[in-house]
Amino acid sequence: MAKPSKKSALSERESNPGSPTINPASRQKIKAFRKKEIEVEELIHRLLKGDKTALGRAITLVESQQPDHLAKAEKVVEACLPHAHQSVRIGITGVPGVGKSTFIEAFGSYLVGKGKKVAVLAVDPSSTVSHGSILGDKTRMEKLVTLENAFIRPSPSGESLGGVAQKTRESIILCEAAGFDVLLIETVGVGQSETTVHSMTDFFLLLKLAGAGDELQGIKRGIIEMADAIVINKADGENQKAAREARLEFKRALHLYPPKQSGWRPKVLLSSAIENTGIPEIWELIEEFTGLTKGNNYFEHNRHEQNKFWLLQTINEHLKSRFYRHPEMKKALQKQLQAIENNETSPFAAAAFLLKKYDEL
Amino acid sequence: MAKPSKKSALSERESNPGSPTINPASRQKIKAFRKKEIEVEELIHRLLKGDKTALGRAITLVESQQPDHLAKAEKVVEACLPHAHQSVRIGITGVPGVGKSTFIEAFGSYLVGKGKKVAVLAVDPSSTVSHGSILGDKTRMEKLVTLENAFIRPSPSGESLGGVAQKTRESIILCEAAGFDVLLIETVGVGQSETTVHSMTDFFLLLKLAGAGDELQGIKRGIIEMADAIVINKADGENQKAAREARLEFKRALHLYPPKQSGWRPKVLLSSAIENTGIPEIWELIEEFTGLTKGNNYFEHNRHEQNKFWLLQTINEHLKSRFYRHPEMKKALQKQLQAIENNETSPFAAAAFLLKKYDEL
Repeated sequence: MAKPSKKSALSERESNPGSPTINPASRQKIKAFRKKEIEVEELIHRLLKGDKTALGRAITLVESQQPDHLAKAEKVVEACLPHAHQSVRIGITGVPGVGKSTFIEAFGSYLVGKGKKVAVLAVDPSSTVSHGSILGDKTRMEKLVTLENAFIRPSPSGESLGGVAQKTRESIILCEAAGFDVLLIETVGVGQSETTVHSMTDFFLLLKLAGAGDELQGIKRGIIEMADAIVINKADGENQKAAREARLEFKRALHLYPPKQSGWRPKVLLSSAIENTGIPEIWELIEEFTGLTKGNNYFEHNRHEQNKFWLLQTINEHLKSRFYRHPEMKKALQKQLQAIENNETSPFAAAAFLLKKYDEL
Repeated sequence: MAKPSKKSALSERESNPGSPTINPASRQKIKAFRKKEIEVEELIHRLLKGDKTALGRAITLVESQQPDHLAKAEKVVEACLPHAHQSVRIGITGVPGVGKSTFIEAFGSYLVGKGKKVAVLAVDPSSTVSHGSILGDKTRMEKLVTLENAFIRPSPSGESLGGVAQKTRESIILCEAAGFDVLLIETVGVGQSETTVHSMTDFFLLLKLAGAGDELQGIKRGIIEMADAIVINKADGENQKAAREARLEFKRALHLYPPKQSGWRPKVLLSSAIENTGIPEIWELIEEFTGLTKGNNYFEHNRHEQNKFWLLQTINEHLKSRFYRHPEMKKALQKQLQAIENNETSPFAAAAFLLKKYDEL
């Protein structure tokens, strides 16, 4: 890495006696620029050594909306890329009340105890509106937050789930470059957030509650099909019988789905974060999964597919937003929608009309 | 409707004595043009009266790739739009061997017997490659094809599922305008074809076979969740016990899904096309569904949402294909994908780079 050197610039000026003396304002700017350069280099250096404060600052850069932070953030991500990717990325979802925080607290602490470095990130599109965050209240993970080898970061805020997803994806890179080897990416089931987290993780874990009626509630379409494991949480005390029944029911339901591309057969486990049961079994299961999928190359294949997905997704979103956010097109689209409702045109004729208009703008 | 009139043009020429006499070639062209105009008007006229030959010819126009057929096709669709929409559109899917053709033969004949006019269309993206069609072999519906109030049309061929879908959607309009009030839209589970058919129908029916193991095979992700009814087919003879068991299993599986927006609870029925059992019950179920959804306005709401979906879908596909089919962008995309695999860039940085390049083209 080239060290920033004041000397070379000075000697250049000296060797160029005809050039005017740099005015103090410019000198100040150059200094500030150099300082930033040093700051970013220093930040990267510390991050790569595993400094959690540096990691936190780097993520703040990535999450920043300020235009002058953009280039710095890009530089940090670029420097981290060659050092990233050495982790298992675990997506965790479940409806509110299922005990996600308590579970992550127990699971994360267990992993740290086993010598792992654990980072917890969140994707919560609702926090883009409320500016709250499912992980904002760190006291919910009292123990984990105090551990040296744990890093907890609330959900970034952003205009859209796409924006939140991008920031989280880049934060994953930073955490990995800082040496975190187990990433827990939590989401609450809002909008498309589970699908989003599924498409940035290696292993997808669905937390469920036991008890009649719970099976019927709050399972969004497609979530069960995405799960690599379903964990029946709070399987303790009086819940145990109901939990075992729920386990059977989900096992049966999983049988209805075709085998996964990964070759993995999703499992259903019981867990109690309070009684601290089931936690080692879940980690064993995940190790079994990574063993299988690294052996059959699905693990790498899936990450490549995810990269491709995010590249194409970003392009597609941009192409669409340019069209639909154009004031002229907004108006024209409303008119065509009305014409369709009045049976005056077909969706295809309307699309052809609008695309022609867009080309002529 | 303005009648094409040769007189007006002639008198115009007469009132313009200074203009040169139209040469025979031009005269021929004008005649041909007028003939086409008359043809299209006549075609529309006959189609709206329920003439099946005219309907067939109109669909051929809609399916045609010839540029000079495009305007005619648009004219036909536009004329049909105000007369369309008075039907129930039923999507039917199931893996090969489940007995779709035999089922449609029995179901369609039953409906014609009840005084319905039944049109059978197909969406089969595989026929775009093989130029075959799941309905190409009309002999598989020997009885239905001979009935005056039945119309059977094989899958259109096309470059893409999107193309096939557009043609099928417009054929639906034509069939409805010709007075067909029950539309059966068949698809074999290839690629996204079920989702496509689901998004152009009011009621979605999944055909299944009884028997151990069958439940595990060939159900694509999300298909069960789309179904308004699951029909266990070939529930006859020795299959009956297995069919009843399969029915229970699917009922249980359906319980795991959240209630549908339509307010409808999907049902599981048994049917034997050979023994002609279960057919009236399926129609009763569909009438119950339309009664419910017309009462709670979901039926109309869903059709509007589908129109909107197809409008946006067509626009989005076009925006994307322009980007991805551009030779320069194709090359640049490959390079960026490689750079991502080499951990030299992130998907988001690569997307930003490509979009900038696209803007500068």
